[in-house]
Amino acid sequence: MSDPSPATPFDQDALRRAVDTVLADHLSGQMRDARRHGLPREAVQALSDFLGAGGKRIRPVLCVAGRQAAGGAGAPEAVLRAAASLEMFHAFALIHDDIIDASDTRRGRPTVHRQVGTEAAILVGDLALVLADDLLHSAGLTPDQLAAVLPVANQLRADTIYGDLRKGKATVLMALALHHADAGQLRALRRHVGNPYLNHDDAAHVRTILIDTGARAALEEMIAQRRQNALTTLDTAALPLHIKAVLRSLAFTTTSRTT
Amino acid sequence: MSDPSPATPFDQDALRRAVDTVLADHLSGQMRDARRHGLPREAVQALSDFLGAGGKRIRPVLCVAGRQAAGGAGAPEAVLRAAASLEMFHAFALIHDDIIDASDTRRGRPTVHRQVGTEAAILVGDLALVLADDLLHSAGLTPDQLAAVLPVANQLRADTIYGDLRKGKATVLMALALHHADAGQLRALRRHVGNPYLNHDDAAHVRTILIDTGARAALEEMIAQRRQNALTTLDTAALPLHIKAVLRSLAFTTTSRTT
Repeated sequence: MSDPSPATPFDQDALRRAVDTVLADHLSGQMRDARRHGLPREAVQALSDFLGAGGKRIRPVLCVAGRQAAGGAGAPEAVLRAAASLEMFHAFALIHDDIIDASDTRRGRPTVHRQVGTEAAILVGDLALVLADDLLHSAGLTPDQLAAVLPVANQLRADTIYGDLRKGKATVLMALALHHADAGQLRALRRHVGNPYLNHDDAAHVRTILIDTGARAALEEMIAQRRQNALTTLDTAALPLHIKAVLRSLAFTTTSRTT
Repeated sequence: MSDPSPATPFDQDALRRAVDTVLADHLSGQMRDARRHGLPREAVQALSDFLGAGGKRIRPVLCVAGRQAAGGAGAPEAVLRAAASLEMFHAFALIHDDIIDASDTRRGRPTVHRQVGTEAAILVGDLALVLADDLLHSAGLTPDQLAAVLPVANQLRADTIYGDLRKGKATVLMALALHHADAGQLRALRRHVGNPYLNHDDAAHVRTILIDTGARAALEEMIAQRRQNALTTLDTAALPLHIKAVLRSLAFTTTSRTT
């Protein structure tokens, strides 16, 4: 990816394409290695399909934006590979999370464990984590840069896993609903939530309660408020203008799923 | 651990204790971090229990033996931490393997997923992998040493995961049994093997067939033959005497489970 020109100071789409190329090339290399050693390629293929199925590449964009915010220019190959490593780590986390949450779909497709089975999906996730290491370690950073970045990367990784272990993930919505529910709604929530065999009607009932209690509207208001705080902070932040523009855009991208 | 004295040129037990101290210290640090950040400690505790429950520490011993075979002296702290990182990675692999193989016991205790559930056990394994990284990266290797060791470590890790994906793991025994089985034994093997709901009688039946077909004796003979080849190779290998002694000892340690 060339350095940003004045007309397109930070081309997010070009960056996403460049990161996707790094990911695809790395996985192709793995596929060739696997074939050469007579090893199973299904895991690499499943991972390749997963990464090819979409995703906003928010972490790679933030990685490159962070570099430029700190005065670095453009997105040289080593930075692209480090950025791609973040996306690969994210793939690991999503694949294992989907097993743990027994999720059926992700990015509009069956989750990896619904495609290849739970056992293989554990290994596909494990492979993603190892390949994330591999991308970062072979990014072309100098030994000193690598030694500086590894402790930070490890801390973020450990935090991700601890975060997954924290009970009650994603339950701000549920906490709001429980707080505002009447007796009947409370009984229904307690009966249905966390039930892995929830049928279509029960799920629809829960969604209705989330709306009727005002929980959904309250959560959307919280998100809008925090996004506004972020945007206001950005107005006066001592950052290059093109970085402010990227972060403003991400403030909307990252909050668009729930609105 | 101090450098080996002439009287105890390679004290495997002392090395195992030193590695266990590194592992315990690292996990204690993680536990303190978790507490300070209000994060769940159960995962660290489960991992700590798993590592405390035994294991031969073969990989750390081989790591230090390899260093000394190449002319390095003793086992300085950085080497001990790198060696401990191998054991932590091994813990990751065993914890996930036990989920995948639906194993009930490991080292005479219930497997991690039988203790904390499959979902948490996936994360405990993930944590072990991240902490293995952390141990290696913070071992105190110079940036150049770290940059040299990481590609090798990554390749070993990827190979481990591909190995787990390879179909028919641990089936040399089964292949021998199928090859020598009569029609009735063949039917029983095909019915029972891979059945996750195998009862006690069926399992006993399979074990009897493995003995009656001579499969078990043939496998033990294969192991003994390969161990003998290794020992013969060692006799003429250009290695320091104390390293030969360690490798001879490991030739027996690593093959003792199946005899």
